[in-house]
Amino acid sequence: MKLNCDMGENYGNWNLGSDEAVMPYVDMANIACGFHASDPLTMDRTVKLAKQYQVTVGAHPGYPDLVGFGRRAMAIENNELRSIIQYQVGALAAICRANQVELSYVKPHGALYHAMMQQPETMATIMDAVKEMELNLALMIQADSQYQAHQAQADARQLPLIFEAFADRCYQDNGSLLGRDQNGAQLDEQQMLEQAHRLMNKQQVITHSQQILAVKAETLCVHGDNPAAINGIAKLAALLRPPL
Amino acid sequence: MKLNCDMGENYGNWNLGSDEAVMPYVDMANIACGFHASDPLTMDRTVKLAKQYQVTVGAHPGYPDLVGFGRRAMAIENNELRSIIQYQVGALAAICRANQVELSYVKPHGALYHAMMQQPETMATIMDAVKEMELNLALMIQADSQYQAHQAQADARQLPLIFEAFADRCYQDNGSLLGRDQNGAQLDEQQMLEQAHRLMNKQQVITHSQQILAVKAETLCVHGDNPAAINGIAKLAALLRPPL
Amino acid sequence: MKLNCDMGENYGNWNLGSDEAVMPYVDMANIACGFHASDPLTMDRTVKLAKQYQVTVGAHPGYPDLVGFGRRAMAIENNELRSIIQYQVGALAAICRANQVELSYVKPHGALYHAMMQQPETMATIMDAVKEMELNLALMIQADSQYQAHQAQADARQLPLIFEAFADRCYQDNGSLLGRDQNGAQLDEQQMLEQAHRLMNKQQVITHSQQILAVKAETLCVHGDNPAAINGIAKLAALLRPPL
Amino acid sequence: MKLNCDMGENYGNWNLGSDEAVMPYVDMANIACGFHASDPLTMDRTVKLAKQYQVTVGAHPGYPDLVGFGRRAMAIENNELRSIIQYQVGALAAICRANQVELSYVKPHGALYHAMMQQPETMATIMDAVKEMELNLALMIQADSQYQAHQAQADARQLPLIFEAFADRCYQDNGSLLGRDQNGAQLDEQQMLEQAHRLMNKQQVITHSQQILAVKAETLCVHGDNPAAINGIAKLAALLRPPL
Repeated sequence: MKLNCDMGENYGNWNLGSDEAVMPYVDMANIACGFHASDPLTMDRTVKLAKQYQVTVGAHPGYPDLVGFGRRAMAIENNELRSIIQYQVGALAAICRANQVELSYVKPHGALYHAMMQQPETMATIMDAVKEMELNLALMIQADSQYQAHQAQADARQLPLIFEAFADRCYQDNGSLLGRDQNGAQLDEQQMLEQAHRLMNKQQVITHSQQILAVKAETLCVHGDNPAAINGIAKLAALLRPPL
Repeated sequence: MKLNCDMGENYGNWNLGSDEAVMPYVDMANIACGFHASDPLTMDRTVKLAKQYQVTVGAHPGYPDLVGFGRRAMAIENNELRSIIQYQVGALAAICRANQVELSYVKPHGALYHAMMQQPETMATIMDAVKEMELNLALMIQADSQYQAHQAQADARQLPLIFEAFADRCYQDNGSLLGRDQNGAQLDEQQMLEQAHRLMNKQQVITHSQQILAVKAETLCVHGDNPAAINGIAKLAALLRPPL
Repeated sequence: MKLNCDMGENYGNWNLGSDEAVMPYVDMANIACGFHASDPLTMDRTVKLAKQYQVTVGAHPGYPDLVGFGRRAMAIENNELRSIIQYQVGALAAICRANQVELSYVKPHGALYHAMMQQPETMATIMDAVKEMELNLALMIQADSQYQAHQAQADARQLPLIFEAFADRCYQDNGSLLGRDQNGAQLDEQQMLEQAHRLMNKQQVITHSQQILAVKAETLCVHGDNPAAINGIAKLAALLRPPL
Repeated sequence: MKLNCDMGENYGNWNLGSDEAVMPYVDMANIACGFHASDPLTMDRTVKLAKQYQVTVGAHPGYPDLVGFGRRAMAIENNELRSIIQYQVGALAAICRANQVELSYVKPHGALYHAMMQQPETMATIMDAVKEMELNLALMIQADSQYQAHQAQADARQLPLIFEAFADRCYQDNGSLLGRDQNGAQLDEQQMLEQAHRLMNKQQVITHSQQILAVKAETLCVHGDNPAAINGIAKLAALLRPPL
């Protein structure tokens, strides 16, 4: 079970997250590509940091909405969405090549990720966008109740998928996450460690209404926005990768 | 002698240039990459149009200044400039791959092109940026009086250069172009055809002060901003590529 | 019956519309404010042009989406929306003051206008935003089937309303416009002149399904995006303002 | 002697500075206007915070360069610069009016401030821009060796000036600041308190080369980017405003 984390979310003079503190503990870095966060120089620095810790690099494209951090729904047509994704992924791919780092996967961000999980056409568009570039990239998506349909969509395109679960977010019975604006949406450290442990060992989560839900994931998404969170990530890493 | 032209300079709802009218006549399309002009969907459309006419595709990166169309000097540090170029070139490279089109070269735009030709450090930064990506790209620069120094800089990096001359712009004695704000900076059609003819056959231009200047170029830059210009390009193409 | 038209939709080096050709025929100029179109210098030029023809100036704020021209739905919270509107209107108000021109009204643009007409909370937010600035501005909205409710909302805030109808767009039976992506959404010149004549003299339109719909408007919105449209506007102006 | 500080430099999801901690200690808040930092909602929040502490509000316009934080020189023509300033100041003025707060002055930011102090034409353009809006605004500039010439320029326009000195930056003999990239450019807390004390009581600073330089200022600029800085500002405020 690998840990993935959003990284490279600085923008110009502004800092967000603590990439230096988090990078040592994660396996996969989802690097923002300049549309919802990041800029070319930040991307270069983040790729170098991932390389230093031998962390697998993925592209984290988002909607063109810096001020909204890509978290707001936007009605973008599929034709344009495909190009928006290829643009961002290609930009990061070039910066990876310049650093002799392999780009391995794509994970959409925020409202785009949400649209992908909700709308089959958006999912299809993103799959096509990633596949068409022929960069040997996988697509990271949520392990939700539609995972078999998504796998079939991907297989039809010979596109590898990576299924993820969320360590620090509360699930609803239908397998989607409780909205960030809801009470209990964000798990505390103890809850997160328990949820991660259960995901790893039983492929399950306990939902908001205390139901058991099967969730089969290869990677856990964590967030490192504050010192407490980083501490939790360190404990989680120790849990997942016990010393020999 | 090949014709190159800036292409893909639309932005969202705004149009600029007449790519459909110009593409049939040119050999190389310098496609804007979203920082001074263009957007992901426009880039995709322009790559498709170039493919249709079997036109060689180059990346045309610029300063991050949409409202100024990349024509204003900006004090950007070399470290950031390198990333800015890789970002833009990579974005276009991915869109090319998605269309099974080869990306062949990089030609900086506007004030960035000007800075490159004036400042050896900027030239070196751009050469490094292009070479580091390992995408087998050439760099297109102006055939000016420093061409031997530039060739040596490029040879040291094993970076191919493409030297260009300007068909429709008036030269000064030192080999640089007369500023756009000067009288006579823009040649009329007859002058352009004469200058192109002389560049092709004698590797010379007649400067603003009526001196003969040696200019050895492999490609001529033309601009297709208006119907008259397009007419001139058609005549120029006929001059350079006489029917068998 | 007055003619209003969107104006000042250039952006940097890009042109859109033909403000110089249209301004002589209209009574009210809805000037874009830099979020979906326009930039500070374009706004200044457009205000000067309106002053030259003694055309009433209104602010035309939109969503922060240049590449989408403000035509895409965006999930922006009301609190932020209020500030976005005040920012844009204030920017234009200052440029008006610098030109000794009065700013008279606000008309939201594109997807924001649509959201305002569909969602009572968005309407209330926009009304509050305009009223709070205490700049003696009216709000221009569509004369639809909810006009009495809108009038009551505005009266409660002592905010003047200006009701508009669309001369060149086809109506549906419920008083909303047929979507731009539908056949017949855009009227031809003859249809536009007939619709304008009927709106002026009978306060009616004939809908897409040939029903008669009452529409009581003080101003007609026209669009001047192409030479044919400008010709139509000239005829419309002659219709509305017959020579003495 | 009043304290002024740059405020409202958050952008969307990104935070910068500690406005809540600094606001209680300063007299004048230079509020960013969305071009180099800030966004409409941040501006609204910052105006409300200034109102809460009865701090005088000024507009802090900058170059259109978010990713460079307005710190990079840009070759913007005066005609456009005038509109850029009016746009930003007007945007903040409207948000102030909506909060029933008076906007009192304009202080350009970063590279724009630097260009203003170095180039008389830029100074004249900015003075014209501010005066033309007829919003009863003063212009805040540096008390340097040209202060008499600047005062004459302002008097000719009936534009009030506010002269400022820098509490926490090291001066050169010619009255300009030592560049941020130079050793000793940033004073430590003890040096800052001494410099502030001397500026207040003797209208002098000790320059980098230990010369005495006359500097007659009405306000001191401070920066609150980190906890240590905020502590220094608190001490400075106590120094300037001793308890009754």
